[in-house]
Amino acid sequence: MTIFSFFTRASQAFHGYPVASKLILVSTLTLSAGGLVAYSESESDIGCPGGVVDQNENRKKRVVVLGTGWAGTSFLKDLDSSKYDVQVVSPRNYFAFTPLLPSVTCGTVEARSIVEPIRKIIKKRNGEVQFFEAECVKIDASNKKIMCRSNIDNNLVGNDEFSLEYDYLVIAIGSQVNTFNTPGVIENCHFLKEVEDAQKIRRSVIDCFEKTILPGLSEEERRANLHFVVVGGGPTGVEFSAELHDFLEEDLYKLYPGVKDLVKITVIQSGDHILNTFDERISSFAEMKFARDGIHVQTGCRVVSVSDKEITMKVKSTGETCSVPHGLVVWSTGIGTRPVVRDFMEQIGQGKRRILATDEWLRVKGCENVYAIGDCATIDQRKIMEDIAAIFEAADEDKSGFLTVGELRAVLDDIIIRYPQFDLYLKSKHLADVTDLLKDSEGNERKEVDIEGFGLVLSHVDSQMKSLPATAQVAAQQGSYLSRCFNRRDHFEKNPEGPRRFKGSGHHVFRPFQYKHFGQFAPLGGEQAAAELPGDWVSMGHSTQWLWYSVYASKQVSWRTRVLVVSDWTRKFIFGRDSSGI
Amino acid sequence: MTIFSFFTRASQAFHGYPVASKLILVSTLTLSAGGLVAYSESESDIGCPGGVVDQNENRKKRVVVLGTGWAGTSFLKDLDSSKYDVQVVSPRNYFAFTPLLPSVTCGTVEARSIVEPIRKIIKKRNGEVQFFEAECVKIDASNKKIMCRSNIDNNLVGNDEFSLEYDYLVIAIGSQVNTFNTPGVIENCHFLKEVEDAQKIRRSVIDCFEKTILPGLSEEERRANLHFVVVGGGPTGVEFSAELHDFLEEDLYKLYPGVKDLVKITVIQSGDHILNTFDERISSFAEMKFARDGIHVQTGCRVVSVSDKEITMKVKSTGETCSVPHGLVVWSTGIGTRPVVRDFMEQIGQGKRRILATDEWLRVKGCENVYAIGDCATIDQRKIMEDIAAIFEAADEDKSGFLTVGELRAVLDDIIIRYPQFDLYLKSKHLADVTDLLKDSEGNERKEVDIEGFGLVLSHVDSQMKSLPATAQVAAQQGSYLSRCFNRRDHFEKNPEGPRRFKGSGHHVFRPFQYKHFGQFAPLGGEQAAAELPGDWVSMGHSTQWLWYSVYASKQVSWRTRVLVVSDWTRKFIFGRDSSGI
Repeated sequence: MTIFSFFTRASQAFHGYPVASKLILVSTLTLSAGGLVAYSESESDIGCPGGVVDQNENRKKRVVVLGTGWAGTSFLKDLDSSKYDVQVVSPRNYFAFTPLLPSVTCGTVEARSIVEPIRKIIKKRNGEVQFFEAECVKIDASNKKIMCRSNIDNNLVGNDEFSLEYDYLVIAIGSQVNTFNTPGVIENCHFLKEVEDAQKIRRSVIDCFEKTILPGLSEEERRANLHFVVVGGGPTGVEFSAELHDFLEEDLYKLYPGVKDLVKITVIQSGDHILNTFDERISSFAEMKFARDGIHVQTGCRVVSVSDKEITMKVKSTGETCSVPHGLVVWSTGIGTRPVVRDFMEQIGQGKRRILATDEWLRVKGCENVYAIGDCATIDQRKIMEDIAAIFEAADEDKSGFLTVGELRAVLDDIIIRYPQFDLYLKSKHLADVTDLLKDSEGNERKEVDIEGFGLVLSHVDSQMKSLPATAQVAAQQGSYLSRCFNRRDHFEKNPEGPRRFKGSGHHVFRPFQYKHFGQFAPLGGEQAAAELPGDWVSMGHSTQWLWYSVYASKQVSWRTRVLVVSDWTRKFIFGRDSSGI
Repeated sequence: MTIFSFFTRASQAFHGYPVASKLILVSTLTLSAGGLVAYSESESDIGCPGGVVDQNENRKKRVVVLGTGWAGTSFLKDLDSSKYDVQVVSPRNYFAFTPLLPSVTCGTVEARSIVEPIRKIIKKRNGEVQFFEAECVKIDASNKKIMCRSNIDNNLVGNDEFSLEYDYLVIAIGSQVNTFNTPGVIENCHFLKEVEDAQKIRRSVIDCFEKTILPGLSEEERRANLHFVVVGGGPTGVEFSAELHDFLEEDLYKLYPGVKDLVKITVIQSGDHILNTFDERISSFAEMKFARDGIHVQTGCRVVSVSDKEITMKVKSTGETCSVPHGLVVWSTGIGTRPVVRDFMEQIGQGKRRILATDEWLRVKGCENVYAIGDCATIDQRKIMEDIAAIFEAADEDKSGFLTVGELRAVLDDIIIRYPQFDLYLKSKHLADVTDLLKDSEGNERKEVDIEGFGLVLSHVDSQMKSLPATAQVAAQQGSYLSRCFNRRDHFEKNPEGPRRFKGSGHHVFRPFQYKHFGQFAPLGGEQAAAELPGDWVSMGHSTQWLWYSVYASKQVSWRTRVLVVSDWTRKFIFGRDSSGI
C-alpha cells in the first residue's frame, strides 16, 4: 500500500472527528477578501499604497497583533482586514508548526518544511496587513502604545527602536521556558520552543558522536558524552526521546557502530509516571514501550542543578541527591511568562499573578481593549458561586424568593454558556434535566428552592473548573474565536449573541470563548503512537501512528508545507535521516 | 512535458559527453569492497573491530587523508581500503556539492540537499575507514605526523587535540578566501566557500528586507540596505547575482512590494568583462542578460576597502575612488592558501611560493610520501626546455649528434605523456606528424636536426603550459587518479605504466596526472544558462539551463541528494522559494 493511499484511508478513519481534520484545511483555503489601507505611525509608506490616512474620527481602528505563533496566526488568517488597520509585530517572520519540532531535532522533518512566511499567510491583494520583524519590549497600556526593538543583528542602517499606537491590542506572544529557577539550566540545557532550538539539538547530537569517536577518550568519557538526558516526561519530552531513540537505532548506530553500546537515553520526570496528563492506559503503554526500547525513565526525581558536565537530581522519596554526567540535556518542562508580559501585568495590577489573566471573552483583566490569546495568558473563569445571588435574583422572575423548575429552565442556557463548568458538572453527574438537579439530598423531586437550597445545589459546580492546557489547539481556537468577534463587532453590538447578564441588564455582546478538545497525540517512536480522543477513546500502536501522519499532514498551514512534510516522511522511509553536521 | 521526461531528454542530449555525465554516477555505484582493519595511534578501538594491530613490518601502510571536499571524497570513494589503514580528518563530517552553493543562498536548493555524510560515503562492511571531525593544525613532515584539533565547540569531555602518524599523507583541504589583504573584507563581507556561508547569506538577504520595512527609515537608508554588492565577476559571483535577481523577482517583490523600486544589485569586476575565463560570446551574452535584468555590472574597478556601511572602490582607468553604501557584500574573488599549508610550505622549502607545488604525479615537491590534490595545490609542470638536452640524448639512439625523424617518432609518445604541453602545442599548430614539426623556418622538410635545431623546434612548446583551474572537476579527477595509483601501486611498481625517464633510466611507475576538461556552465538566471564545452562548442539560453539541470542532477554524489535536489527544483517551480528567516 502506498503512503498516499494509506493517508487517504487514515484520513477517512479520522472523519469521526471531521472538525479537527478540516479546521485548518478550511481556514487555509478561506482567505478573507477586503481592501484595508495600512496605517503606520511613522511617515512610512512601505506596503501602504494608499499613502497617508487622515487621523480624523472616520479612520479605521488600529489593531496591533503581537506574535506569529498559533494564536496570532490563527487570528490573522481569519481577520477581515478591510475593517481594521492591522499591524503585526513578531521577532520571527514566519509561522512554525511547533507540534513537529521534536521531529526536526532528529531530521525526520526538515526545519524549513514546518515554517511558512507570515507575509505569505497575511498577503492580500493590496498589502493591507503590515508586518514588522521586531520584538515588543514594552506595552504601555495607559497610552495605548507599544515599544518595539528590531532583533536583526547586523550592520544595516535604520532605527532599532520604534513605537506603535493601537486601538486594540492582541497579545499572542506565547510563553518562554520555565526553568523553575534551577541553577545552570539556561546555560547548559537545550530547549524545544523555537525552530532554532530544534536545529541546535540536531547539530549537538551529531557533535556528541563526533567528539566521542575522536582518539584518546576513556570509556567513561565516551559514556558521559553519549548520555542524552531529557528533563520532563510530558508529550514534548516523550516525543523527543522517542525520536532520538529512532534516530540512533535507524541511522546513527550504522555510522558509529563502535560506540553503540555506550549510548544511554534518560527521561527524568518529577511525577510518578510519564505522560501523566494522558489516560492511564497511554501512560503505561508508553512506559512499557520505553522499557523495551532501553530508554531509561527515572520518575519521582526533581532536577536541582545542571552544570556543563553533570546533572544533579533529588529523588523525591528518599531525599537523596545524585549527579550523573551528561552529553546533552533537553529541558522540556513547564512554561513561564515573558518579561514584557510580566512588566505589563505589574502595570495593570496583575503583578501577583503567575500568568496573565483574561475574562471569558479573552479580554485582559484590568485593561481596556487589550486581548491575550494562546500560551501567554489564561482564562480566569468566573465562579458560579460568586454570582449565586445575582443569578437567583435574575431567575426569580416573580420575586417570590423561590426558584421554580420553570424559572430555572428559562435561564439554564444562559447559565451553561456563561459558566461552562456548569455543563461539565451536569455531564459528570449524568443529570439530564433541571428536575434532576433540584432533587434534594434524598433524591426526592422538588418544585422550587430558596436561595440557600440553590446554593447547595450549585456548591460543587465550580470544582469542575479547569484552566485550558497551553497547547496549539487552544491557541488556534482562541485566535479564530477572537477574529470572529473582531469581524462581527458592529453586528453583534446591535444584536448581542451572548448570554444574559445576571449582574446588570441586557445581554453580553459575544458568546464567551468555548474550547473544543479534539484529542491529543503522543508519538512513541518505532512507528507507534498513542492518541487520546474525545469520548474516552484511546488508541495505541502502529495504526495510531498513521492516524497521526494523516492528521498532522492535513493540519499543515499551507499546501507547500503539507507537500514538504509528507515528502520529508517519505524521504526518511527511503533514505533515512541525514547525519551531516550542518 | 514533465520535468522528468525533460531530464531524460536533456540527459540524452548530453550523451555527446558521456564521460562527464557518467563519471560520478559510476563512481557512486562502485563501492570498492575490502576488509581493512582500522588503525588508530591512540588505544581507541572505536570503529575498529579488529582491535590492536601490531606495529611490525607486515602491518598495512597508514594513509591519512585531510579534507572531505571534492578531491578528498573522490580519493576515498575509489580507494581500495583493504590495502591501507585509512584515517580521514576534516572539520566537516560531510561532503558538499559546492557547485550548487549559489542556489543555496536563495533557497532554490536546500543546504541539506547538497550534503552527504562522509561516513555514509566511506562506510564499508567492517568500518574500515576511520573518520575524525577535526581540523589539521600542523603537518610535521619530518616526523610523518599531523596534529589535529577538534572543532566541536561545546562542553563535551575529551582531549581537543590529538596527533596521527602516517605513511602516506594526502592533503586535500582546499583553499580559503583570498581577500588580497583588502581592509574590512573579513569583517564585513559574506563568502561562498562553505554551506554555512550560503545559509548565512540567505538569512541576511531576508534581514535586509525586514530591516528596511521597519518604520522610520528614510528613502536613502532604505536604498542603502537594499543595495546588494557582489565582488568578483567569475562564475560564482555571476551565478549568485543571477540567483539573487531571480529570488527578488520571483519571490521577494511579491512579499515586499513597497520597496521593490529601491533594490539594486551591483557586480564589481576588476577586469573588463564578467566571466572573462569563458568564451567571449558567453561573456557578452551574460553582460547583455544582466543589463536587461537591471543587474548593474561595474567593470574595471578594484575594491580598496569595505566598511560595515560602505564599500570603496577605485576605477582603474581614471584612478578615482568612490564609496557606495551597501546592505550586503558577497566577496567571491580568488582563493588563498590555508595557514596550515602555508606553514607546511615553509617547512619543506616552498616558503616563497604562492601555492603548494606538486609534481605531475601529485606528489608534494620537497617531501616524501605526501600528496596534495584539489584547490590546495597546483601541479608545477616540468618545462620541456629544461630537459631538452636529456631528451635529445635519450632520443639520439645512435649517438650521432643528430635526431632523425624515426628516432624522434620513437620517443614522441613518451614526450607527449611526460610534457602535456607538447600535445597542446602540436594541436595548436595543427601539426599532424613529426615531419611537420621538423620543417625549417621556410617550411622545407628536414630529415634530421641537431640539438640547436631541436631546441628551436621546441622553443615555443612551454608557452602552452597553463595551470589547472581551481574547480571541482579538477579536484575530483585528481582524487580519482590518486586512488588508482594507491590501489595499483604494487602492480605498477613491478610493471611501470609511466613514460620513459629521459633523465635516468627505465620508466616512471605511473602515468602523470592528465586533466580532461568536460566544459563548464554559467547559470545566468531566468532559466537561462551558458555552457562552454570541449571542441569550442558554446551553448546559451533556456535549453542550456535544462542541460545544466540534467548534468547537475546526474553528478550528485548519492541517490538521496539526487532525489532531494530534483525535488527542490520542482518545489521551487510549484511553490517558489521560502522567505522565512531561519
